[in-house]
Amino acid sequence: MLIGRVRGTVVSSTKHPSLNGLKLLVVQELDPETFEYSNEINVVADASAAGEGDVVMYCRGSSAKYADGLGGFPIDEAVVAILDSVCVDDEMVYEKRDK
Amino acid sequence: MLIGRVRGTVVSSTKHPSLNGLKLLVVQELDPETFEYSNEINVVADASAAGEGDVVMYCRGSSAKYADGLGGFPIDEAVVAILDSVCVDDEMVYEKRDK
Amino acid sequence: MLIGRVRGTVVSSTKHPSLNGLKLLVVQELDPETFEYSNEINVVADASAAGEGDVVMYCRGSSAKYADGLGGFPIDEAVVAILDSVCVDDEMVYEKRDK
Amino acid sequence: MLIGRVRGTVVSSTKHPSLNGLKLLVVQELDPETFEYSNEINVVADASAAGEGDVVMYCRGSSAKYADGLGGFPIDEAVVAILDSVCVDDEMVYEKRDK
Amino acid sequence: MLIGRVRGTVVSSTKHPSLNGLKLLVVQELDPETFEYSNEINVVADASAAGEGDVVMYCRGSSAKYADGLGGFPIDEAVVAILDSVCVDDEMVYEKRDK
Repeated sequence: MLIGRVRGTVVSSTKHPSLNGLKLLVVQELDPETFEYSNEINVVADASAAGEGDVVMYCRGSSAKYADGLGGFPIDEAVVAILDSVCVDDEMVYEKRDK
Repeated sequence: MLIGRVRGTVVSSTKHPSLNGLKLLVVQELDPETFEYSNEINVVADASAAGEGDVVMYCRGSSAKYADGLGGFPIDEAVVAILDSVCVDDEMVYEKRDK
Repeated sequence: MLIGRVRGTVVSSTKHPSLNGLKLLVVQELDPETFEYSNEINVVADASAAGEGDVVMYCRGSSAKYADGLGGFPIDEAVVAILDSVCVDDEMVYEKRDK
Repeated sequence: MLIGRVRGTVVSSTKHPSLNGLKLLVVQELDPETFEYSNEINVVADASAAGEGDVVMYCRGSSAKYADGLGGFPIDEAVVAILDSVCVDDEMVYEKRDK
Repeated sequence: MLIGRVRGTVVSSTKHPSLNGLKLLVVQELDPETFEYSNEINVVADASAAGEGDVVMYCRGSSAKYADGLGGFPIDEAVVAILDSVCVDDEMVYEKRDK
């Protein structure tokens, strides 16, 4: 799965009926080690009530349909977790701050 | 999912029977932040009555079969929404103009 | 889906039984706008009676199994159409010549 | 499948219910010949009780759901084996050391 | 599908039960035209009794599960044919030598 940060949203009034009510997020991939942005920036269906700024884990491909309430949707990426922390080589590279 | 602009169409008379009547669009990917074209330019099945110039969201891989009326089709990309607006970092990077 | 030109064939006598009688084509991807070859050159199962020199549309991934007669085959790419014409930005970038 | 080394873990309290109790590993891909790191570094679901430092084989895409106990999970990568040795061109390029 | 040459093997004693007895090959991709190695070098499940040095065709993604005896396995690449010859632009670019 990929790690990314939610940077925005996409709005559409002409879409596949199943997508009604589904939040579509603009997510940019983060390198799990350096936490710098990679070039990859996509639209990802929200299945975790994620909001702007959240660091999330998202799933790509047809497995995204197993995310909450997305079965049978024409989507290929879904946010499946909001991350609390990421640890690489025994160092904490990311920790969610309390709001 | 990917964001792209419809730039053309593909016509074929010798094809898989299920593709009869299906509109095949030439879609070029757009960077969701800068809205500049990326190198990726593919043929995408239309499931949203999209037309040339439309900014669309499209789905890749086997999930495309969940788009309207495309179940069991040998296609790997489908337009699933025509976009009204895209917002990144609290800035409107794209807004559909009224015709 | 991708656009490519059939450039050759692959022959194998030791293969998965389901592949018996299936034509395996060497297909090189074409940029849908410039019609120049890209680097991608793969082996693609034929489901459209395509021949050498034909400009074809092919489908990648598990959706290829929906092509004519390929259900349950261990293949990940299939030719699903022979193209007559491709139009980009109101210009005809490809048109099949009569034989 | 890919070869990689487990370099860390990811923790999340807000996630898809099916992911509860599932270990999420930070895995960086290794070139199977030189055993140098490639750029690819992802989050991979653990299905083999792998730990930090282990050299593992992981599976990508929807096939990951066939890994032990991951059926119907919204994941697209799973560790399916911990490697003992890798042999390329009759040379042992990797051998697990006894602990 | 991809063309590659078998360059080695991978051994694992801690793995998904379904992988017991399955040969895991190190395969490097070959350009179908020049037959030079590409950068891609992966672990591929054997479903064709392939051995070191063989030039093979392999299938990627979830379709690999349709290869002989691999149904429901957590694998994403499988050898499905050993090649006899490859012909590109009417030239024989590869022909298997008799042993």
